[in-house]
Amino acid sequence: MTTSLLRVPPPQGLLRPLAVPERLLLGPGPSNVPPRILAAGGRQLLGHMHPEVLQVMDEIKVGIQYAFQTQNQLTLAISGTGHCAMEAALLNLLEHGDTVLVAVNGIWGQRAVDIARRLGADVHELLKPPGEYFAPWDIEEGLARHKPSVLFITHGESSTGVLQPLEGLGELCHRHGCLLLVDAVASLGGAPIFMDQQEIDVLYSGSQKVLNAPPGSAPISFSERAREKMLRRKTKPPSFYLDMGWLANYWGCDGEPRRYHHTAPINSFFSLREGLAVLSELGLESSWERHRANCTLLCQGLRDLGLELFVKEEKVRLPTITTVRVPEGYNWKEITAFLMDNHAIEIAGGLGPSAGKVLRIGLMGCNSTSGNVERVLRALRDALSHLRRSRL
Amino acid sequence: MTTSLLRVPPPQGLLRPLAVPERLLLGPGPSNVPPRILAAGGRQLLGHMHPEVLQVMDEIKVGIQYAFQTQNQLTLAISGTGHCAMEAALLNLLEHGDTVLVAVNGIWGQRAVDIARRLGADVHELLKPPGEYFAPWDIEEGLARHKPSVLFITHGESSTGVLQPLEGLGELCHRHGCLLLVDAVASLGGAPIFMDQQEIDVLYSGSQKVLNAPPGSAPISFSERAREKMLRRKTKPPSFYLDMGWLANYWGCDGEPRRYHHTAPINSFFSLREGLAVLSELGLESSWERHRANCTLLCQGLRDLGLELFVKEEKVRLPTITTVRVPEGYNWKEITAFLMDNHAIEIAGGLGPSAGKVLRIGLMGCNSTSGNVERVLRALRDALSHLRRSRL
Repeated sequence: MTTSLLRVPPPQGLLRPLAVPERLLLGPGPSNVPPRILAAGGRQLLGHMHPEVLQVMDEIKVGIQYAFQTQNQLTLAISGTGHCAMEAALLNLLEHGDTVLVAVNGIWGQRAVDIARRLGADVHELLKPPGEYFAPWDIEEGLARHKPSVLFITHGESSTGVLQPLEGLGELCHRHGCLLLVDAVASLGGAPIFMDQQEIDVLYSGSQKVLNAPPGSAPISFSERAREKMLRRKTKPPSFYLDMGWLANYWGCDGEPRRYHHTAPINSFFSLREGLAVLSELGLESSWERHRANCTLLCQGLRDLGLELFVKEEKVRLPTITTVRVPEGYNWKEITAFLMDNHAIEIAGGLGPSAGKVLRIGLMGCNSTSGNVERVLRALRDALSHLRRSRL
Repeated sequence: MTTSLLRVPPPQGLLRPLAVPERLLLGPGPSNVPPRILAAGGRQLLGHMHPEVLQVMDEIKVGIQYAFQTQNQLTLAISGTGHCAMEAALLNLLEHGDTVLVAVNGIWGQRAVDIARRLGADVHELLKPPGEYFAPWDIEEGLARHKPSVLFITHGESSTGVLQPLEGLGELCHRHGCLLLVDAVASLGGAPIFMDQQEIDVLYSGSQKVLNAPPGSAPISFSERAREKMLRRKTKPPSFYLDMGWLANYWGCDGEPRRYHHTAPINSFFSLREGLAVLSELGLESSWERHRANCTLLCQGLRDLGLELFVKEEKVRLPTITTVRVPEGYNWKEITAFLMDNHAIEIAGGLGPSAGKVLRIGLMGCNSTSGNVERVLRALRDALSHLRRSRL
């Protein structure tokens, strides 16, 4: 090599080792990943069309069918994070001019509105203040008034800590000729959901919460009704990467020979497969019960500390993420910083409509243990006493 | 728990251990991942907004600036595979009705046409048979005739093994008021590219080829000209996940405080950071030279076996992926299957317009070694003698 043509030198920062401290992640996700699942993600690569990878994809598919309690053929994982699955759901279901009704009581409804507007849909919002949920009559009124072809609703509102009851909503939607699209990113595996029995048409989640895998892949499933709507599309979806026709083939859901579509995030699939295996071994009902029990323990402990839970009714509290009002006289940022600096524990402040109002504590997957409940309560007590003292 | 409400039982397949055999991946990617980079991807999670993760993102940014040879502020990694970066480039640059010219001489041009049409662009194709490349006058004629606002061209055509010369194309495009968009998924780090000096406006790549990381994140960068076109958009891009305005903020490219956008694939970023670190330590020029030298060695060996290289001119042969005609009387599938079954080596058949015509052998990143050249040549010789024998 004679004179170098390079104008940009090798960056110094990259010549230092990667630093990843150990932390207990009790925020709204990602959650900590157990060694078995990390190890799966650290396995050597295979080609994206090798039979072993296709088998892993098949196993993911049945794992999602189990976690979602569905027999839908069109069940697969998106090659992106939970947010990407939200886009995949909306952009495959909606066409320019379609009417969609979005139930907004936190950030995820707001996001769905943003995405649906980008897609040229006629978007109507059904609003509730953060911390509240939708009753069947709220939904029914919205369906009757706006006559949407799709209703979007969030099962686990991670920004507010609300668990939306889904009973009867599928039937209600279908009576009004509407499809039911449910976001279960924060709730899947932590609270009961029955895709088929509850007549949910599109359901998606993420890998990095109860499923205990790193972010990077996202389960999704479509009912026969949803599939028919997609087959009737007049225009192609505005994405090739997320086009459900192609993905259905790539995931072996259409009975045709599988064709190359994109290079999938193979290691993310290895991790997701293990996350679903752990859930299958534990059993869904045990997982729901574990999350419920540890959430109850946490809520009691928070009340014992004199804190006020943000979601009043116990039955609509999300078992995976608990929201508590920022105590009077405290700055939420000082509390979260204290826990991080002194206890290596992450908890989070609010997000979107709950910003500044709440603290969010997540107990998800392997992190949902009574030991972690005690750890975070001890750390919070420590924070409240020290931070208060420093103000006197 | 009394009577179970579950209708779908835990899948048996998931109760068996994950099986991942060791293979030498000498196809068009993914390539094998060195232990250091696998280990980075197997590290415990951190939150997506923790300072250590933001620092990793900053390091990725400067690493990409180095690999691309650019000083563009708007440089980051997409939370998806290389294909997702192609979509991000097109959907941020193009609006409904924009005119785009796509140079098509293999599958990637075809894909860009598909995506641009989905976005409602007025798409014109500049066609060359697979195995050929575009001369400046081909491009100039297309620019003059169609007056596009964007030209798409593939630097490393992994389906045909062509390395497209880029010299002068940026200047040519700019003289015609057009932006130059280049796909370097298969070539980055394996062949010289100088984003700033060559006046490339949008450049993207993938993580799973020369960068030696698993698929799941994808480098991308935008010039000031490209940024201005995006700022002049009349409509929002049809994706929130890939909206460059939001991603620019999330990656600290706009000088504003960073806001939560989506939960990034954190471990994929750890791996990508290490892949860029390995490239920085080795040095771009050494990496280019290594890929060139091993490709030359491979080409000579293939000719010694009596095989015919698909790309005639040496100067436009992609150093990372070599294409060779399927020898007369052989079935390509039998050859690739023989190498897999008897040598645990992956090589690939053609893709899209090269399907059935060629075999593709990749030597990328840590897999670009003289030892691997010998291994694959030995395996090929074995295949040709055995398969021929079985036919006599």
